[in-house]
Amino acid sequence: MLSETLYQAIEKELQRVVALTRQPGLEEMHHMLAYHMGWQGEGAGPGARGKRIRPLLVLLSAAAAGGEWPEALPAAAAVELIHNFSLVHDDIQDQSPLRRGRPTVWTKWGAAQAINAGDTLFTLAQMALLRLGETVSAEVALRAAIVLQESCLSLTQGQYMDLSYESRGNLTLEAYWPMVSGKTAALLAACTQLGALAAQASDPVCRSYQRFGKLLGLAFQALDDLLGIWGDAALTGKSTESDLLSGKKSLPVLYGLGKGGRFAARWTQGSITAADIPALAAQLEMEGGRQFTLERANRLTDQALDALAEASPHGEAGEALTALAKKLLQREA
Amino acid sequence: MLSETLYQAIEKELQRVVALTRQPGLEEMHHMLAYHMGWQGEGAGPGARGKRIRPLLVLLSAAAAGGEWPEALPAAAAVELIHNFSLVHDDIQDQSPLRRGRPTVWTKWGAAQAINAGDTLFTLAQMALLRLGETVSAEVALRAAIVLQESCLSLTQGQYMDLSYESRGNLTLEAYWPMVSGKTAALLAACTQLGALAAQASDPVCRSYQRFGKLLGLAFQALDDLLGIWGDAALTGKSTESDLLSGKKSLPVLYGLGKGGRFAARWTQGSITAADIPALAAQLEMEGGRQFTLERANRLTDQALDALAEASPHGEAGEALTALAKKLLQREA
Repeated sequence: MLSETLYQAIEKELQRVVALTRQPGLEEMHHMLAYHMGWQGEGAGPGARGKRIRPLLVLLSAAAAGGEWPEALPAAAAVELIHNFSLVHDDIQDQSPLRRGRPTVWTKWGAAQAINAGDTLFTLAQMALLRLGETVSAEVALRAAIVLQESCLSLTQGQYMDLSYESRGNLTLEAYWPMVSGKTAALLAACTQLGALAAQASDPVCRSYQRFGKLLGLAFQALDDLLGIWGDAALTGKSTESDLLSGKKSLPVLYGLGKGGRFAARWTQGSITAADIPALAAQLEMEGGRQFTLERANRLTDQALDALAEASPHGEAGEALTALAKKLLQREA
Repeated sequence: MLSETLYQAIEKELQRVVALTRQPGLEEMHHMLAYHMGWQGEGAGPGARGKRIRPLLVLLSAAAAGGEWPEALPAAAAVELIHNFSLVHDDIQDQSPLRRGRPTVWTKWGAAQAINAGDTLFTLAQMALLRLGETVSAEVALRAAIVLQESCLSLTQGQYMDLSYESRGNLTLEAYWPMVSGKTAALLAACTQLGALAAQASDPVCRSYQRFGKLLGLAFQALDDLLGIWGDAALTGKSTESDLLSGKKSLPVLYGLGKGGRFAARWTQGSITAADIPALAAQLEMEGGRQFTLERANRLTDQALDALAEASPHGEAGEALTALAKKLLQREA
């Protein structure tokens, strides 16, 4: 199957790049990175690696845009390393003890080493990308580097907003989209755009792929926010997994805060425990938060699939790309 | 004067790049960066900016290698932003309250925002460099990006060593050079090499500039370590500025630890206070630590100036480059 072939090639490229840090006296440094990437240490394995959605999007976009996917491998490795750099730093910033069920880098090696491990992954991402100069051309590598840097800037801007929202009480819906555009959608937009760029597709085609990636990211986030309150795990399963408990400023929460009704009053009051979750979720649903989020997610999903159709993805990769998008957006593939 | 012209051009280029973050709703994020760069906030001004040695080295190397220094401005801004990204993260890692006499970013905005501010400067450095594609060519921009990334990887490796040394008791001199090569010399080597690259100098000339930068970095660090114990401020002035108090694993300290004499015994015992400094410095000097460090610093300084002479720097810029090196190494200019 195409996706499995790509997944294997992605792991190999990632391991090649991370191995650049493997030097005498630096074995532990390499191990920290290999641990985070899910290759080494307790709990290593596919479950500890994440789904590698971003590099898959790069390679499928490259092939669907008429290119040879192996030529896009440097960009695929780069986006996954950027994603993982941001996760390592996010976990320090949020003081999260676990990532994919395993202790986070900062809990194992301390915040100082974890900051440096994230910086290393960031550097490796840049190094990975520049190999496009060998697989395609210097011009494409340079254009790709600019695309990647712009998405990184958006990422840091989204992260700034996310961090600053924690201490702000007066947030409304307006605050949501710029934050999510930066934190989630910008890197996904870079993935699909980089794939098309590596395939040397025309500018309009590159723009369609970029638009698809961005809308995919926004739709995915809206859906994720919906499931974070009304998904099985959050509601009927363990209330401890509810976004209402973690205090996340998600789309339905910001909708509810904007309404200024009973949900907003209870939320603002604070000290929400697991026992409060079912009633609080029901209150937010009654005020229209669920319906609003569902409509937004559906509309964005339709727009994302339209943008992909506009890009006219070719062949088996095109079908796989459409299937991946539908799976991420929980539509029938 | 040439250096003053360059300094002004560097500030302008840096401000242009950092202004990329200035967007509606992100004023505070831009301010954090402008504060760290010494342009805004309490205590802003030349003293808060550092000496911009690295970008000066880039521009002087470019001009001395026969190029037009304005074409190298993207590389000059890039290295200064890399340096400052590493300072912002260093300050969190070392929990330093002050940087250039002002509160550090993390003490003002918290560690989470400071990690993100460092990441933003790192991203801006990459963006800055890629403008070499406009001022010179795509090929040069790509080669320059590879040089910069490799120095960043060395930087993170040096930082890993520095952080891991804190908890290691059995350090010897062997541990010193790889750490300093990464933390200090790699970026200085990139500065001089990037200048020569932007000037499109031949490969052997680029290598001579790189070698000069690396040796300059090593010599500078050895000298800095000497002054950190036997300099006026450390010894006769405020003992609180002595590296013996901060516990820094500097060259003379590692020499002394390798000797395994009375200095090593006292150091290993710990709990060193300001009152202990004069006697401890005298003990280390008696065991040969001062002489050893001075000889190393002098030899590296000679090697650095030889490497620069080999590069045959041209004209006023060449003279200014030699003068800058001599000033940094405390030789008569």
